[in-house]
Amino acid sequence: MNNFFSVADIDDLDSVVQEALSLKADPYAWRELGKNKTLGLVFLNPSLRTRLSTQKAAMSLGMDVMVINMDKEGWALETQDGIIMNGTTVEHIREAAAVMGEYCDILGLRSFPSLKDKVADYTEELFNKFIKFCGVPVVSLESATRHPLQSLTDLITITEHKQIAKPKVVLAWAPHVKALPQAVPNSFSEWMCKAQEQDLVDFTIAHPAGYELNEEFTVGAQIVYDLNQALNGADFVYVKNWSSYSDYGQVYPVQEDWLMTNEKLGLTNDAKVMHCLPVRRDLELSSEILDGPNSLVVKEAANRVWAAQVVLKRMLENLKK
Amino acid sequence: MNNFFSVADIDDLDSVVQEALSLKADPYAWRELGKNKTLGLVFLNPSLRTRLSTQKAAMSLGMDVMVINMDKEGWALETQDGIIMNGTTVEHIREAAAVMGEYCDILGLRSFPSLKDKVADYTEELFNKFIKFCGVPVVSLESATRHPLQSLTDLITITEHKQIAKPKVVLAWAPHVKALPQAVPNSFSEWMCKAQEQDLVDFTIAHPAGYELNEEFTVGAQIVYDLNQALNGADFVYVKNWSSYSDYGQVYPVQEDWLMTNEKLGLTNDAKVMHCLPVRRDLELSSEILDGPNSLVVKEAANRVWAAQVVLKRMLENLKK
Amino acid sequence: MNNFFSVADIDDLDSVVQEALSLKADPYAWRELGKNKTLGLVFLNPSLRTRLSTQKAAMSLGMDVMVINMDKEGWALETQDGIIMNGTTVEHIREAAAVMGEYCDILGLRSFPSLKDKVADYTEELFNKFIKFCGVPVVSLESATRHPLQSLTDLITITEHKQIAKPKVVLAWAPHVKALPQAVPNSFSEWMCKAQEQDLVDFTIAHPAGYELNEEFTVGAQIVYDLNQALNGADFVYVKNWSSYSDYGQVYPVQEDWLMTNEKLGLTNDAKVMHCLPVRRDLELSSEILDGPNSLVVKEAANRVWAAQVVLKRMLENLKK
Repeated sequence: MNNFFSVADIDDLDSVVQEALSLKADPYAWRELGKNKTLGLVFLNPSLRTRLSTQKAAMSLGMDVMVINMDKEGWALETQDGIIMNGTTVEHIREAAAVMGEYCDILGLRSFPSLKDKVADYTEELFNKFIKFCGVPVVSLESATRHPLQSLTDLITITEHKQIAKPKVVLAWAPHVKALPQAVPNSFSEWMCKAQEQDLVDFTIAHPAGYELNEEFTVGAQIVYDLNQALNGADFVYVKNWSSYSDYGQVYPVQEDWLMTNEKLGLTNDAKVMHCLPVRRDLELSSEILDGPNSLVVKEAANRVWAAQVVLKRMLENLKK
Repeated sequence: MNNFFSVADIDDLDSVVQEALSLKADPYAWRELGKNKTLGLVFLNPSLRTRLSTQKAAMSLGMDVMVINMDKEGWALETQDGIIMNGTTVEHIREAAAVMGEYCDILGLRSFPSLKDKVADYTEELFNKFIKFCGVPVVSLESATRHPLQSLTDLITITEHKQIAKPKVVLAWAPHVKALPQAVPNSFSEWMCKAQEQDLVDFTIAHPAGYELNEEFTVGAQIVYDLNQALNGADFVYVKNWSSYSDYGQVYPVQEDWLMTNEKLGLTNDAKVMHCLPVRRDLELSSEILDGPNSLVVKEAANRVWAAQVVLKRMLENLKK
Repeated sequence: MNNFFSVADIDDLDSVVQEALSLKADPYAWRELGKNKTLGLVFLNPSLRTRLSTQKAAMSLGMDVMVINMDKEGWALETQDGIIMNGTTVEHIREAAAVMGEYCDILGLRSFPSLKDKVADYTEELFNKFIKFCGVPVVSLESATRHPLQSLTDLITITEHKQIAKPKVVLAWAPHVKALPQAVPNSFSEWMCKAQEQDLVDFTIAHPAGYELNEEFTVGAQIVYDLNQALNGADFVYVKNWSSYSDYGQVYPVQEDWLMTNEKLGLTNDAKVMHCLPVRRDLELSSEILDGPNSLVVKEAANRVWAAQVVLKRMLENLKK
């Protein structure tokens, strides 16, 4: 593996999941692999799970880790070419990325979308420039349109908890007070669509009209506008809010009740409930579910370590070739 | 030791002090003990000494360490149950603590009091929830009502410098421009009261009327309102400001001069002067004392490493059982 | 080496450069040297290259590293003596430095000048107090008047890329929108003047009238006000903006065009172009140069690791004596 940016960077999904589970069973078996290798984690936005789980995974592999909050500890980045830098940006991504690539064997980058400039966000302008100019393998810590470490984690978690070979997995939109990126649902969807192709799951997306995701991420998914219909027979329900893609970054009023509750869970096949966290209690997902036996959210978050560790392990092995 | 939150977590004070001093004599003897164990340090407020000394102690024990400034790098935390999270808090402590517990073998947490909601502060609402939901041993890096690593440090420092078996120790209130928490004086007092029970010190508290600490922390202490009377024959003077407990978080005008000076030190038994730092020079404590031979403040701060190291060592040993 | 603050801390320039290049050839040969030694990196201002390269250098030497953003994670520092601390500063540098010295074997400090108080800046008041009170060796991560790790890096880079024994090196002032410190040009100049004394380079400084550096840093340099004249026959051009020293911290309007371009480069001996970064593209230095074959800026930044590593290595060796 060179970069880890989307599901396209993994061929056989089940094999990477099984390798992650073997790391979970024996986390420190590869302490020598990362010796004298440095991971740089670059954050342009806040992070709790990604920050800690990726650091931990790298240290368990014996790597040296450096973390930089570029927005607070470094310099404001310019991404445009062909302009005179006489404004507020202090350093161009061409130099910043190249320099960090000189200091690190592998780089991780987190950068949220603007939710204003759809083209810049969906062409992954910043991320692609970072990858291009840094010159070393890059692992996405969440980009404008995807959060692949989260999606790999989700697949690991589904694999661990599934009772049948091909469980029904539902991505269910939920309410929120803020306009959130589509990165997590895009990413979950493209991973589940590929998992469906590989006969690992059966995948449905439910959301109100107007909240259609970019079609590029949903090829093969069944898409419905009726939550109850979607929940029927579900084995896993993945709850998540996102803002509109078509009317980019907007939040529409929604009449129906999309808050996930135990009552709605009654329609499912005693489904396990997932969420990438942070979750707004009783707005997206009811406390009764989060504190009850069907919630996987903490176990899911715990699995972030093994997703990061298997990705870093494969990158390290690739470096040694 | 499971958690380290108050003096109640230590039975024999002198034995933990002696163990800390043995670590001071040979800091790296336990590099193998913490191997493949991760410490997470979570700060909701600024920190210099606690941040660096605890990191250093953990690294000297061979642990992997991760630091997160939750207020700046992570998400705003909700602590209340039963509310709909449609405001400014992004993540509930139930999830945040549980997730951090999955990534770390031991967690440290710093959280200052509001100084507005006495009940929430004195029931240690946030800290207790963090301990409850994280599921791993927790070391307090200062909570709303206590700063036990500081108090253990203070006892180590007194033990090192005492000339007689049972020195007279005075906690002396001092002026300040801000309303400060009672955590350090509460904690120092409960440690000294227990040390007095174990015949290690003789303990007096001096403060202006209106600055009485919560009685729970001062059982057995002699409390006086006259600084000069308290200083008479003192071997150690511990200078510290705090705001009112009874009229919670308020600062009263004080007529008498409570700034500690060399002149006042003349009333003591050539007392050593202590302060937890940071100290406001010539407001709480005179420069002449801080720069003179009676000040222990830097040696005291240096001992923070050994207090943290002995606590982490005992927690690690407990993990292995 | 005890402290690393200016070129005066190095006797034989070429020998330290050769030692840095030997570390570049074999970075992990000294992993045992720094074992059980702690480096503390203290930042009062933002940093990208210095932060990451110094951390990496220390980890490659086997050191434990702690980083603190004192301005954000710690307490506001007081530097003046003889005042009552009843304002906004929370801790005096006397205590803060002394305490950090207790936790670390070597300290690094970054502190930018005020650009308002010339005397405080040029007497290096804060830095000198930090060195005095911390009691351990200090490496400058950039002070008010100097950036020695950058200058050592620059000499390493010139040594690697020079085609003749004594190349012509030109420090060329460039435009900017902000008032910048003189630290980098001061430091580069004092290193190049010493390198000129040791027959390693031929050194010229070019800037508009009014931008004269403090003479203390330019002894032996040829100083001209005509950029074209300076560029004639140059082998290396070091581009950098700075604000006025005489009219301290001011920025004068400049009529002539001082932006470095390929056209101006035509006057040189196919000179290599350097800059300490971050660089304002097409304001200080043209994109065509930065993206072309004559730019050394990324290789120069990469060399920051070896400058830091050779300095830390010499400090560690000195500690063991």
